[in-house]
Amino acid sequence: MKYFFRVEYDGSGFSGWQRQKNAPSIQEAVEKAFTVAARAPCRVTGAGRTDAGVHARAQGAHVELDAALSTKETERSVNAMLPPGIAVYRLQPVGEEFHARFSAVSRRYCYSMCPRKRPLLYKRVWMVFYEMDWKRVEEECAALVGMHDFSAFCASGSGARHARCTVTKASLSSQGDLKVFTIEADRFVYMMVRSLIGTLVDIGRGHITAPLAGILSGRDRKRAGTTAPACGLVLDNVFYKGVD
Amino acid sequence: MKYFFRVEYDGSGFSGWQRQKNAPSIQEAVEKAFTVAARAPCRVTGAGRTDAGVHARAQGAHVELDAALSTKETERSVNAMLPPGIAVYRLQPVGEEFHARFSAVSRRYCYSMCPRKRPLLYKRVWMVFYEMDWKRVEEECAALVGMHDFSAFCASGSGARHARCTVTKASLSSQGDLKVFTIEADRFVYMMVRSLIGTLVDIGRGHITAPLAGILSGRDRKRAGTTAPACGLVLDNVFYKGVD
Repeated sequence: MKYFFRVEYDGSGFSGWQRQKNAPSIQEAVEKAFTVAARAPCRVTGAGRTDAGVHARAQGAHVELDAALSTKETERSVNAMLPPGIAVYRLQPVGEEFHARFSAVSRRYCYSMCPRKRPLLYKRVWMVFYEMDWKRVEEECAALVGMHDFSAFCASGSGARHARCTVTKASLSSQGDLKVFTIEADRFVYMMVRSLIGTLVDIGRGHITAPLAGILSGRDRKRAGTTAPACGLVLDNVFYKGVD
Repeated sequence: MKYFFRVEYDGSGFSGWQRQKNAPSIQEAVEKAFTVAARAPCRVTGAGRTDAGVHARAQGAHVELDAALSTKETERSVNAMLPPGIAVYRLQPVGEEFHARFSAVSRRYCYSMCPRKRPLLYKRVWMVFYEMDWKRVEEECAALVGMHDFSAFCASGSGARHARCTVTKASLSSQGDLKVFTIEADRFVYMMVRSLIGTLVDIGRGHITAPLAGILSGRDRKRAGTTAPACGLVLDNVFYKGVD
């Protein structure tokens, strides 16, 4: 029987979500824990990959399990088996047609930046020490909303057929001196959020003077800015119809 | 010349704020960093001690430094010297009469609890797995506001002459399934917040049926509940008149 669940993880110690030879991945750790808890080989499918060092608050995933297992007990054993950096929650049965990746309606990512060293947010924020025009960054975010070809913000090697994404939300908010960029879209191309953040920071510090809208419509990766580090990025949520 | 500054720290790897023989303390690490940066022996005075494993977002402290030093550069060198778990900020000159401990008007602590494993809040929250009546806990908080003798929530060994504290704020707020208890007072007695939280959780899970007000007025430590673990506690702020 098919089960849906959420995964929260601190990506710091992992080579990313996806299973890899010779590198510790979240997917592999979760599969191993389910395999022990369910006493049967388990394969786990996630809503999407996250890169090395990228975190997740509510990654979506599914797994096939014996229908006789208790979800509460299985969840508890899986969490006890997993290291402190990974946890699963909201394990629940779903229909056979459900697929963690293809049933996802949209995804939300948050990227955090801070102008100073933050021990309580270590490996969770990008320390942006530059003099920044945050007001300008905030205004530029509006250019992202809508359906666009994000080729200018797509790193090579993704294998995606096209770079069109429909962004439903893109904004910058402040919590004290912490800046949090939030973006929601139906899909994301490879390194999209980190390329966007790198470019927005380059704009904010005056390194790039072109408006974001122009860089976006130019579809040229070379006109975009640097790629922001992984540590500030969190896959905040994956939205599904009828499943939470 | 006297300088005030703030300290943020992840208390996990330390034996607490206060300098100790044979155990790593925040105070010692900060003193060492200032001593190297200022090229002269420095002693640092904090607003108060925090125990092993307790964090701080805005501890207040003062230090004597050569008036010729640049605050910006000194702050940068001190932070570069300190481990990732400790940072100083807002280094600023203050009058000779200022004292990080005695000039403090009030302190604010926050204590975080969560009903499940939270990789992104590892060593920052207490995982409370019990069935809890959080509404009851929220209501009980009101009993804390005002001037009370907190002997019932004071561990032995503090050396304080009395246990009277004036609490100006005590409340419980929710952020998703995360519960954050916030308390502000002119002073705190030894282990006060952790004893309060332990007792509030004992009340919320039905282990203690007496109302908090009764336990408080009874002034008997034995009637209070367990002591909550250090990891959920953060010294969130220390308030001063005229200094931020």
